[in-house]
Amino acid sequence: MVLGEEMTNLFTDLPQSLPDELVTTLLEAAHVRIERIVSHGHVSPDGFLYDQDQHEWVIVLRGAARILFEDRTVEMKPGDFVNILAHQKHRVEWTTPAQPTIWLAVFYGEAATE
Amino acid sequence: MVLGEEMTNLFTDLPQSLPDELVTTLLEAAHVRIERIVSHGHVSPDGFLYDQDQHEWVIVLRGAARILFEDRTVEMKPGDFVNILAHQKHRVEWTTPAQPTIWLAVFYGEAATE
Repeated sequence: MVLGEEMTNLFTDLPQSLPDELVTTLLEAAHVRIERIVSHGHVSPDGFLYDQDQHEWVIVLRGAARILFEDRTVEMKPGDFVNILAHQKHRVEWTTPAQPTIWLAVFYGEAATE
Repeated sequence: MVLGEEMTNLFTDLPQSLPDELVTTLLEAAHVRIERIVSHGHVSPDGFLYDQDQHEWVIVLRGAARILFEDRTVEMKPGDFVNILAHQKHRVEWTTPAQPTIWLAVFYGEAATE
């Protein structure tokens, strides 16, 4: 995680190659954290499910992705957003290899167990 | 203010004409509120300054705008974001007449006096 103290534009500072997902924290406050996440063909590891203590409101701004929930699949194109409640298990099943996918994620709520 | 319970994409549901700024609440939680704001040439009323109880992290995703603070002017193009602390007085001095300007605003922190 890199602190984005210098970053002032979400669509700049994209690395030429991206061996791993790039997560940049844009804001960190008491009950909210805003991250830019850049994926380029990355997916969650096989069998892995996110199970987060905080809620996550997330929007795709560039690229395309597919999120798998236990009960549904959500295709995401630029502008699409979804609100993922704490402990709602999910994984990123696909991001387009054609270009970087840029997510903006707002984590919110108590970080302690709920 | 319209509750965006049905909205799932930030760039759709844009009205043909926009007599006033259009504010849609996308998320409302204990310490955070996420809004889509659509301006089309709109500016803050003459002499008006926002003086908000909550902090506001805001990004321009389409269009262009200029925010005036007491000590500086910030030009904003797509991807540019700024963190406006509570009670940091500011106004929107200009938004482009060429197209709608789409803002994503995250209000956070205690709404009570700080």
